[in-house]
Amino acid sequence: MAKDKKLVESITSMEEDFAQWYTDVVKKAELIDYSSVKGCMIIKPAGYAIWENIQKELDRRFKETGVQNVYMPLFIPEGLLNKEKDHVEGFAPEVAWVTHGGMNQLQERLCVRPTSETLFCDFYKNDVESYRDLPKVYNQWCSVVRWEKETRPFLRSREFLWQEGHTAHATAQEAQERTEQMLNVYADFCEEVLAIPVIRGQKTEKEKFAGAEATYTIEALMHDGKALQSGTSHNFGDGFAKAFGIQYTDNNNQLQYVHQTSWGLSTRIIGAIIMVHGDNSGLVLPPAIAPVQAVIIPIQQQKEGVLDKANELYEALKGAFRVKTDCTDKSPGWKFAEQEMRGIPVRIELGPKDIEKGQCVFVRRDTREKYQVALEDAPQKLDELLKSIQKDMFARAKAHRDAHISDAKTYNQFQYALENKPGFIRAMWCGDQACEDKIKEETTATSRCMPFEQETISDVCVCCGKPAKKLVFWGKAY
Amino acid sequence: MAKDKKLVESITSMEEDFAQWYTDVVKKAELIDYSSVKGCMIIKPAGYAIWENIQKELDRRFKETGVQNVYMPLFIPEGLLNKEKDHVEGFAPEVAWVTHGGMNQLQERLCVRPTSETLFCDFYKNDVESYRDLPKVYNQWCSVVRWEKETRPFLRSREFLWQEGHTAHATAQEAQERTEQMLNVYADFCEEVLAIPVIRGQKTEKEKFAGAEATYTIEALMHDGKALQSGTSHNFGDGFAKAFGIQYTDNNNQLQYVHQTSWGLSTRIIGAIIMVHGDNSGLVLPPAIAPVQAVIIPIQQQKEGVLDKANELYEALKGAFRVKTDCTDKSPGWKFAEQEMRGIPVRIELGPKDIEKGQCVFVRRDTREKYQVALEDAPQKLDELLKSIQKDMFARAKAHRDAHISDAKTYNQFQYALENKPGFIRAMWCGDQACEDKIKEETTATSRCMPFEQETISDVCVCCGKPAKKLVFWGKAY
Repeated sequence: MAKDKKLVESITSMEEDFAQWYTDVVKKAELIDYSSVKGCMIIKPAGYAIWENIQKELDRRFKETGVQNVYMPLFIPEGLLNKEKDHVEGFAPEVAWVTHGGMNQLQERLCVRPTSETLFCDFYKNDVESYRDLPKVYNQWCSVVRWEKETRPFLRSREFLWQEGHTAHATAQEAQERTEQMLNVYADFCEEVLAIPVIRGQKTEKEKFAGAEATYTIEALMHDGKALQSGTSHNFGDGFAKAFGIQYTDNNNQLQYVHQTSWGLSTRIIGAIIMVHGDNSGLVLPPAIAPVQAVIIPIQQQKEGVLDKANELYEALKGAFRVKTDCTDKSPGWKFAEQEMRGIPVRIELGPKDIEKGQCVFVRRDTREKYQVALEDAPQKLDELLKSIQKDMFARAKAHRDAHISDAKTYNQFQYALENKPGFIRAMWCGDQACEDKIKEETTATSRCMPFEQETISDVCVCCGKPAKKLVFWGKAY
Repeated sequence: MAKDKKLVESITSMEEDFAQWYTDVVKKAELIDYSSVKGCMIIKPAGYAIWENIQKELDRRFKETGVQNVYMPLFIPEGLLNKEKDHVEGFAPEVAWVTHGGMNQLQERLCVRPTSETLFCDFYKNDVESYRDLPKVYNQWCSVVRWEKETRPFLRSREFLWQEGHTAHATAQEAQERTEQMLNVYADFCEEVLAIPVIRGQKTEKEKFAGAEATYTIEALMHDGKALQSGTSHNFGDGFAKAFGIQYTDNNNQLQYVHQTSWGLSTRIIGAIIMVHGDNSGLVLPPAIAPVQAVIIPIQQQKEGVLDKANELYEALKGAFRVKTDCTDKSPGWKFAEQEMRGIPVRIELGPKDIEKGQCVFVRRDTREKYQVALEDAPQKLDELLKSIQKDMFARAKAHRDAHISDAKTYNQFQYALENKPGFIRAMWCGDQACEDKIKEETTATSRCMPFEQETISDVCVCCGKPAKKLVFWGKAY
């Protein structure tokens, strides 16, 4: 019992200190550990298994749209990084530099990729000759490095895992379509698989990616009312093509520049899963992404027949579900707490009394509701329950998100909402960066996106009172 | 037709220049491209898809033995790399050093991981407390960097992709069993999936991994008679545990050191696939690993009904096979040459005359044999043919390998075999490193392994004539 208490007591409640709650969950659910390299994390089995499921599902969705996977070098020569002016300004201050190979100083420094636009451009420059070579729809799964000063597990670390798609197209229209298509792949994935509702929209000029013509984003709302940018898709137009000289011969034998896109989603999304769904007992994982969907916990397992029956149940479920049995010598209470901490969607209790009645007990992680289930119905009932949990988790997250969107027509309303009701603020904007800067400076809120679904909630900019051009979602963000 | 010729003429024949043949295949089959980072390659879609299939199959086999995937940082602080003396001596001369993060010089240099023993040890030191925490059977899929002077695609590059397993066990026996188990996973994978026969054995002291007590290897023979080390598995005993202080409390409450292993297989194996199976028309891929197992090539595709029928056949095959249709506007001859270059195991020709007869033509890549197949039998016949190809490719590779093993009882025989019959040489060895050094210096052959299946083919060492201790496979190697 001492161990049970320790496990449960060791999480700070989210109402008391949300940041500490997050750190506790990340550690106690054994998702990550800190390494001796400052700002770099160790992703442990329970964390990496979530990433593997994300990869599997996203990769399948990518390939359905014609994406091919490749692998580009880890290093970018300094001269290559410098080729596109806006891009290098955005990234050079935060890259790690390799200066020596073995015992020798390198003639040219190499940076560890913070993102690979320049490498893909350098490749496409040689690989694309004719319109027949287009489109190129390539992606890579890899790690990237950005020398951040402040780091937090999953949310901001010096090294993180992601995928980065890089495409080249014959026309501007095709590039724009691909940019939006991939944003929608991300959004659908977040909503259908991670049960995280997202706002789809465009970033302002100030917030767009270094070197992009337009950046699109999906924005999710965390439990504490802060926003998290969860995936981005960029249209580069022909800016990189001109900087790198990526041209093709069209079907009239004319030289044309290609139009490019890139799009990425990273391990940061695991932070969103934690902060959208988690509670004061730990992680709560949506069934579609949970590495273990149900854990069978035998009660009084030393009694004759209990482990046999647990194993029989395991065999009946393992073909259709990601299931495991915990028959270690820990107490049932400890196992329950551990299942809750790790966010396993369903716990299946099975003791001598249940066996007498030919039943087991399902306990869902999200609501803690209990169900007595006849053993022969277990596979069907588990299937139904997992689907309900997935649906309910999305509905709850959406209700929370929607309840934390405020409309502000005046700057006073904006400030009041920000202080009293953490969440997204919808407010009109004149399109001038000065207003964005002022809002950020005075409130620390940033423009999250100009949503695709535009409305006019006021005729004037919430900040300066000049005529409004766009509805913007604002918020404090991770 | 000009294009057909160009495609075919552009490969050097392997008899004329094996190294150039290899480079040509790697480029023309579009497996890789060179990057502007010297010694680092770009893995293109056709190459990366092979690696994805290798990953999928190996990862499945790992997980069946209880392996869990994790992710460790890309960087190793210099002080951490220096902790195990033999290990740092082996790797420090060939690592890339990061000295600056953003605009600032780092207080301690970081090397880009050449392998991650030190990171796993640093982690296990904190993560392992009691015998209940053991064993740890972790693996990661990642890229590593070794600052090689001479590089060749897949075979030796400054950055390469691999998996590295790192385990910690309570007893020496368990560590030894895991070391052998993983070597056998590699060997079975190579033989069953890649159709590459391998010799399983132990490395000599001279050739073992830096820091290991014992290194086990699988050695394959390439078409030119050179050996390729295709996967290794190391038993570290408690050497790293003592250097890093990785101790656990056993069930008698006594502190004990853990026993560790590591094992890796890399993109180098793609080089083996090329050099074991390829021919003068290009790549030949074993069906079990081929990203595309069969390509349907319509003949006179502009004639009515041809593309429809090709599509019908595609639909009938796509559920059970990795199949595609090439209905681009290239000529059939060009498509045939491309299928051969890319090593697609079966080409399915389908023209108006075939359709009249209700048939198609299967052409296998390895032997070029043709089969007329009734359209309704195509799925079953393709399944049979792919299985035959897989089996025949292994048998041919094994026959070639076995025909290139010579026994040498004297140093003269050794030298004669090496000059006249490229391949493995089986010869007895006294166990003294001086003989290994002499053989390497005088013949450039190295000891590949002491095979698990030992025999006594002579009583004396092939080099010095002293009493022999071990049968050794020798050879020139990549």
